[in-house]
Amino acid sequence: MRAEIINIGDELLIGQVVNTNASWMAEALNKSGIRTVRITVIADNKEEIRNALDEASKRADIILISGGLGPTNDDITKQTLAEYFNSKMVFHEPAFRQVKAIFEARKFPVNEINRQQAMIPEKCIPLFNKNGTAPGMWFEKEGKVYVSMPGVPFEMKPMMTEQVLPKLRKKFNLGFIYHKTIMTTGIPESMLAARIEEWENNLPENIKLAYLPQPGIVRLRLTASGKDEKQLVEEVNNYCRKLHSIIPEVIYGYDDISLEEVTGELLVKSGKTVSTAESCTGGYIAHLITSVAGSSRYYKGSVVSYANEIKSSLLDVPEEVLAEHGAVSREVVEAMARGAQRKLNTDYVLAVSGIAGPDGGTPEKPVGTVWIALASPEGVQSNLFHFGEHRGRNIRRSALAALNMLRLELNKSEPVEKKC
Amino acid sequence: MRAEIINIGDELLIGQVVNTNASWMAEALNKSGIRTVRITVIADNKEEIRNALDEASKRADIILISGGLGPTNDDITKQTLAEYFNSKMVFHEPAFRQVKAIFEARKFPVNEINRQQAMIPEKCIPLFNKNGTAPGMWFEKEGKVYVSMPGVPFEMKPMMTEQVLPKLRKKFNLGFIYHKTIMTTGIPESMLAARIEEWENNLPENIKLAYLPQPGIVRLRLTASGKDEKQLVEEVNNYCRKLHSIIPEVIYGYDDISLEEVTGELLVKSGKTVSTAESCTGGYIAHLITSVAGSSRYYKGSVVSYANEIKSSLLDVPEEVLAEHGAVSREVVEAMARGAQRKLNTDYVLAVSGIAGPDGGTPEKPVGTVWIALASPEGVQSNLFHFGEHRGRNIRRSALAALNMLRLELNKSEPVEKKC
Repeated sequence: MRAEIINIGDELLIGQVVNTNASWMAEALNKSGIRTVRITVIADNKEEIRNALDEASKRADIILISGGLGPTNDDITKQTLAEYFNSKMVFHEPAFRQVKAIFEARKFPVNEINRQQAMIPEKCIPLFNKNGTAPGMWFEKEGKVYVSMPGVPFEMKPMMTEQVLPKLRKKFNLGFIYHKTIMTTGIPESMLAARIEEWENNLPENIKLAYLPQPGIVRLRLTASGKDEKQLVEEVNNYCRKLHSIIPEVIYGYDDISLEEVTGELLVKSGKTVSTAESCTGGYIAHLITSVAGSSRYYKGSVVSYANEIKSSLLDVPEEVLAEHGAVSREVVEAMARGAQRKLNTDYVLAVSGIAGPDGGTPEKPVGTVWIALASPEGVQSNLFHFGEHRGRNIRRSALAALNMLRLELNKSEPVEKKC
Repeated sequence: MRAEIINIGDELLIGQVVNTNASWMAEALNKSGIRTVRITVIADNKEEIRNALDEASKRADIILISGGLGPTNDDITKQTLAEYFNSKMVFHEPAFRQVKAIFEARKFPVNEINRQQAMIPEKCIPLFNKNGTAPGMWFEKEGKVYVSMPGVPFEMKPMMTEQVLPKLRKKFNLGFIYHKTIMTTGIPESMLAARIEEWENNLPENIKLAYLPQPGIVRLRLTASGKDEKQLVEEVNNYCRKLHSIIPEVIYGYDDISLEEVTGELLVKSGKTVSTAESCTGGYIAHLITSVAGSSRYYKGSVVSYANEIKSSLLDVPEEVLAEHGAVSREVVEAMARGAQRKLNTDYVLAVSGIAGPDGGTPEKPVGTVWIALASPEGVQSNLFHFGEHRGRNIRRSALAALNMLRLELNKSEPVEKKC
């Protein structure tokens, strides 16, 4: 099954907006077993739209269009589609009810122009827009499907997920596609690949594996296709459980959950609290933890001790330890963790001290050298990491490594729930 | 002058990678006065490439191609271009020297395959790739220009900026385009537009203004075109100076500098130090400040007092003040600022306490209510802000508002340098 994506919008052609719709739609199609053969970005212009439709329909069976449905240029795209499919415009009562509901919620009066927004080509199947005023439009012609959707991602995405993809699956009898994303951290992609090689080689034809790496995290995406949904899910979950038994400590969760969310859930479950003592990460671990809604249940706070004097004054790191070992050392990071445990009075503490760069490196401690300590009720443990040259990445990777140390510690008492 | 962009890459068609190259290239063309009329994404496939070139050359004068030049698929794109322009492949010595230099720097041996990377179509003008092994290729045919560039942004961008755009400007006698971006913060877009309306209406035909808003910041981009570069720069700078005299406190800098960088520069200049005391921002202000390399010169650290007990124990906020006024209050945020000033011993302190959401709001203090205090050697001042519903945005806008309070205070003694 071949698809093309047409994105309409002048803002895309002047580079003001990055075309995230295209990649999101292409990924959604790909996950449904539909191949995108071309993406075309065009201006909000009748002739351009007509030409793009003509060309796309020569190459593909499914043509998805986004954009060009805003209230100011509504008529161009809708009118062009009506003409293209030889259809007159008709008033669509449910679409008008949605326009009215949205306007009334915002306390704006509804006028004659708003009635225009509810006019649609007679030959289309309208698609309800739960987050906006412009309905989507589904056309069929000579066995091919054309779908026009709004360009606002917040409106397009649920329309695509809840209406377009299920209808395409039914229309083209696509069978089922099931995805599971396994989130891993703590070992690099190459090492991960070596450890799971045998498992990977034993995957059946209908289950594909993709490695999706990002700094500090590798996502493994399983994509399975088949005719029986229940059997498919079971099959994937079986392979997932096998994988978990091979790399139990590396898997931190499933389906795009973040490390800060997983750690938060474990803390809630165990009823424990955490605080942080940060030097080179400069508050970024605190920021990640508190970006999770509800984190006040387990997170008390942080001392960001960027200057050495703060390490001494607020975290009780002895000045002679700093002088003897330097701020980036096992001795200092462990003293920071112990100090924060006392001062912030939490069960756990994550402490980090390192050289984020670009300056401050030495031959013995080059940029990217990072010490991380974890204080727990049982004592303090610490690890030395060597990241790279890039300041932003060093900060991010240090924060993830710290959260992962806490996750592994919490898992000792609370074994990870196998969600497969 | 009309251009088309063709991006080659299977990773774009499965949605694994967002096509940031297209928007970057379109913006660069737009800034040079060249209109992009279409963007096309295709697979790494001979026929697709040939068809896309045929179609684009019917509509545009300039066709820019990115991608498809990696070592594994090198031959397809290069070979296709060679055939398309009826050109044989020849060995290009400077390209080979670059391949050798890069391989030797990475301590990899150079082999026969690497010689292939230095083969290019005879009819192209090669473009040097300073960050990679694949050279760019400039073709001309029937008055139209075709340029093939690598898909890696780090390789494509300098090639485009330093070679392709100057050559296009010369070839098509495009005149000069001059841009200046004015960074503003502290007032919303609509209020900004009202204050500068008269100035905007007086801009001459050849200077265009664009509003580029994002949460907490509005960028104003001036784009001027003309034949005399020196005169053009002078003209834009004159309008820029006039604008500065209308909204002096709203402009925080020029040309995409960040608020944390500007604040950092002012602190370095004044020789002063700063620390932070954060509640709802949860370390995000500390993170922004320390994301700037060299921030240890002026930033000492932060107490992230997420729990009320930390506000008392580490920042000396009296428990009775917390009980009487609540954590989100002028009294508490000012006490946090004074406490941090003593404990962290800095000239300035930024303190924030608010309700980021989604929970924790009340009718009197709804989600988005944020108090920010600035302690300076002269005393403590504080402001109340009402942001929105969205947790992430509330955190970001609070941090920017706090940094802006510090900037305005520092500007009192160090008047902002007018870079126009």
